[in-house]
Amino acid sequence: MSEAIPNLQARFERLRANKLFEALVIGIIIVSALLVGAKTYSETSRFEQALRVLDLGVTAFFLLELTIRMAGERRLRDFFSKGWNVFDFIIVVASLVPMNDSELVLLARLLRIFRVLRLVSMIPELRMLVTALFKSIPRMGYVALLMFIIFYIYGAIGSFLFHEVNEKLWGNIALAMLTLFQVATFESWATAVLYPTMEHFPYSWIYFITFIFLNSFVFLNMMIGIVLDVMQKESVQMELESGEGEAAELHGLRSDVQAMREQLSRMEALLQKRE
Amino acid sequence: MSEAIPNLQARFERLRANKLFEALVIGIIIVSALLVGAKTYSETSRFEQALRVLDLGVTAFFLLELTIRMAGERRLRDFFSKGWNVFDFIIVVASLVPMNDSELVLLARLLRIFRVLRLVSMIPELRMLVTALFKSIPRMGYVALLMFIIFYIYGAIGSFLFHEVNEKLWGNIALAMLTLFQVATFESWATAVLYPTMEHFPYSWIYFITFIFLNSFVFLNMMIGIVLDVMQKESVQMELESGEGEAAELHGLRSDVQAMREQLSRMEALLQKRE
Amino acid sequence: MSEAIPNLQARFERLRANKLFEALVIGIIIVSALLVGAKTYSETSRFEQALRVLDLGVTAFFLLELTIRMAGERRLRDFFSKGWNVFDFIIVVASLVPMNDSELVLLARLLRIFRVLRLVSMIPELRMLVTALFKSIPRMGYVALLMFIIFYIYGAIGSFLFHEVNEKLWGNIALAMLTLFQVATFESWATAVLYPTMEHFPYSWIYFITFIFLNSFVFLNMMIGIVLDVMQKESVQMELESGEGEAAELHGLRSDVQAMREQLSRMEALLQKRE
Amino acid sequence: MSEAIPNLQARFERLRANKLFEALVIGIIIVSALLVGAKTYSETSRFEQALRVLDLGVTAFFLLELTIRMAGERRLRDFFSKGWNVFDFIIVVASLVPMNDSELVLLARLLRIFRVLRLVSMIPELRMLVTALFKSIPRMGYVALLMFIIFYIYGAIGSFLFHEVNEKLWGNIALAMLTLFQVATFESWATAVLYPTMEHFPYSWIYFITFIFLNSFVFLNMMIGIVLDVMQKESVQMELESGEGEAAELHGLRSDVQAMREQLSRMEALLQKRE
Repeated sequence: MSEAIPNLQARFERLRANKLFEALVIGIIIVSALLVGAKTYSETSRFEQALRVLDLGVTAFFLLELTIRMAGERRLRDFFSKGWNVFDFIIVVASLVPMNDSELVLLARLLRIFRVLRLVSMIPELRMLVTALFKSIPRMGYVALLMFIIFYIYGAIGSFLFHEVNEKLWGNIALAMLTLFQVATFESWATAVLYPTMEHFPYSWIYFITFIFLNSFVFLNMMIGIVLDVMQKESVQMELESGEGEAAELHGLRSDVQAMREQLSRMEALLQKRE
Repeated sequence: MSEAIPNLQARFERLRANKLFEALVIGIIIVSALLVGAKTYSETSRFEQALRVLDLGVTAFFLLELTIRMAGERRLRDFFSKGWNVFDFIIVVASLVPMNDSELVLLARLLRIFRVLRLVSMIPELRMLVTALFKSIPRMGYVALLMFIIFYIYGAIGSFLFHEVNEKLWGNIALAMLTLFQVATFESWATAVLYPTMEHFPYSWIYFITFIFLNSFVFLNMMIGIVLDVMQKESVQMELESGEGEAAELHGLRSDVQAMREQLSRMEALLQKRE
Repeated sequence: MSEAIPNLQARFERLRANKLFEALVIGIIIVSALLVGAKTYSETSRFEQALRVLDLGVTAFFLLELTIRMAGERRLRDFFSKGWNVFDFIIVVASLVPMNDSELVLLARLLRIFRVLRLVSMIPELRMLVTALFKSIPRMGYVALLMFIIFYIYGAIGSFLFHEVNEKLWGNIALAMLTLFQVATFESWATAVLYPTMEHFPYSWIYFITFIFLNSFVFLNMMIGIVLDVMQKESVQMELESGEGEAAELHGLRSDVQAMREQLSRMEALLQKRE
Repeated sequence: MSEAIPNLQARFERLRANKLFEALVIGIIIVSALLVGAKTYSETSRFEQALRVLDLGVTAFFLLELTIRMAGERRLRDFFSKGWNVFDFIIVVASLVPMNDSELVLLARLLRIFRVLRLVSMIPELRMLVTALFKSIPRMGYVALLMFIIFYIYGAIGSFLFHEVNEKLWGNIALAMLTLFQVATFESWATAVLYPTMEHFPYSWIYFITFIFLNSFVFLNMMIGIVLDVMQKESVQMELESGEGEAAELHGLRSDVQAMREQLSRMEALLQKRE
């Protein structure tokens, strides 16, 4: 019996690595995504029942798959040491919690949506992309802080000055910052925000145009900065790699020359001795 | 008679390569494009008749040109081995199918529009551009999939939450994704989508602003990624080319030094022998 | 008397190169720009008269300056050999043509606006910028042609299909292309173009979304292409420059080693002779 | 007593460099930012009083902190030699000026907003970012001038031609330039600007489309130019750095070879002497 367990484990390990099994999991994830999509259409009662059965099937399959992957590991700790596994575990377990309460049905539905994210954890290329995205976050952090400061200052100024022009747009600093975000995306910034304001404050265009310029200036510089930053790192690495071969060649050459000098010194000593 | 055929073939081959003939084909393609454009204006019956005659002429010419190009090849298989030829063949033949049925007139007209695309297959620079575009598709594939997943998840959430705010914008997941595409292009996203939603869900700005940030974040990273990807490939190639000359020089130097060491060893042996 | 002319010419040449004179010309150009701007405000009759006098003064000064620059050249042909001089000449002479006819007053005014462009021909940095812009035109030519073909094909399709939805937007191919340009800039493309069309053709979103994707895809690839194209040229040049020094060093090393080998051969010959 | 003063100064210097003290200052700045934000909400009288007390506290703390930092310097001149210190000094002192007049309350409030900017002067990363932004200003200067000229010329033309179409949009050159800025951001440029104009001037689309193309063409070229400009500088520097190591290696090799040639010459002389 004690032999049966590692045997079973090896079997699960093989199953987990099976290409066909992986394709099946991806297929079920897509089915679960379609189920979520289908639920957004108005449903006849029969269609609804079919969906519920399918949903139960998907939940059961996900539970089974998770169990297989956990059983396939030597130790349970190994399973949880990978971030993506923890992610899968949370998503699968979260959809198990029974929520029959009509209030919580919405929450249960929302949780089921995140099953689509399992696609990311299953397809290696997507996993790489998302990892790369996470890595680029800190690089953007301080620029985001600088932009937030710009928004905050302009938001406060706008809220003090244009308070009485339009309570909905400039009522307090939060509304003003939202309005400024709208201005930053150029959405109806002139027709719905600038012109009504200019009727009361004819020089308010200075406020908007400086904001737009400052914003795009910071954004442009940020983009250029990131491109250069990443490029420099890659180029330094490439230089190192390509330089290595050449450096090795040069180093070999130098030790050759060193050996020759020693040989010459020996020969010179022989010649001088005979003198 | 058996000699006449290769003779004729060579003649067609020469004709096909003729610059003047090429210019004539391009001219006819432009005429056919103008015909398509002219048909979109409201027509007097006389004008319409003239157009029909011209259209017949263009169709006949294209058929003739295709025949010449096919006859100019040694074997018919050679003609169809090039993708652009197959493309030309389909476009020319498709406009031959007689469609007198009033229902199919629209289809016939649409098919004639694609004749304009023959410009791409005739002008080498455009052909190169389009080939380059096709090559860059797979590189963008996984990013497109990631973006689709983001749209799908936000679409499902939006459809569940804002279903009752505006049935036209958030009625089902397809409508919600279309609305999100509108938000992603910043078109009336604040005035027509955000503000009406905020009247029912005061915190819905979190949904929209995270969506916009996530979207532009992925897009920005994709662009930077592509630029770096292409650049790295080119730069590796350039390094190889420029490095080749230098490496050859270094290699030559090293074999020179090797030869010198052998000579020195011979000389040392001579000196030691005499000792 | 025959000596007086070259004397005068040298004087004009000096005057033309004078920094102060240049600053004065730039100042007058700015005054002329302000005059153009001032004319767009509704004028009292007295203000108008002042403007007319100033305008006459500016015209007279420009004529004087042009005469000095032409007199400062050895031969008149030298003056016209530079594109920017021809440009200045046309702008100054064009504003001399008397246009008292009330119909032509507008044309006269428009011509005077282009005097502002003389700023570009006077400030070397701007001249360089504009020259660089002109140089980048051919590089963008074929991409522009490709985009025009895309617009033409979609314009024709749109005009055939959506003709009856909105005569103003899709009435003929020209209007349809203008509407597509509006869609390409994302201006009210969803609220004013897509949704009204979708009421008659529920699947018309395919037409718009493929158009937007195709468009931005070509545009993105063009931008990346240009960046890489320019960078490659610069980088090749830099490699050549930086590589030159190293190559010279390597070449020197090799000839040193060559000389050593010859010396060794002489020494070996001496040793073998004594044997 | 004379020893007490340097003692105190050293103490202040230590305090200023204290990480905890720095964190406290940053905390107080954030509190002052929140105070500014809170004031934009409609206030009950009690809440208002609390805010006033807090504001007084923040002002007092800032004054204290400034005094400590000034006392921590050897000479007062050292303090003012750094731009960021001058910036802090102005912001703190400006908020000290008593402004009880109800007219000036708004000004006092606006001044307090700029305290948020002290975050930039306190956090080194933000200070670096802002310094980098300031450095990139001159590089963009001439392009901005060129764009202003384009706006000015199109503004004048637009104002002359479309004056009577819409007095609010094209009334004078200032309004026309603002309208063109709106067109440049693509905000309602077609629905609110182009189409109403085309009703009177059917060919006015030429004016708008050339403006948009010219604008984005200059902008695109500027961006590419900046990227290349910055990259070239960095890449030249990197080449120098990476080249240095290799050049040193080559130089060492060459002097080795030189030494060998001298040794060989000595040996050849010995051999020839014995002849």
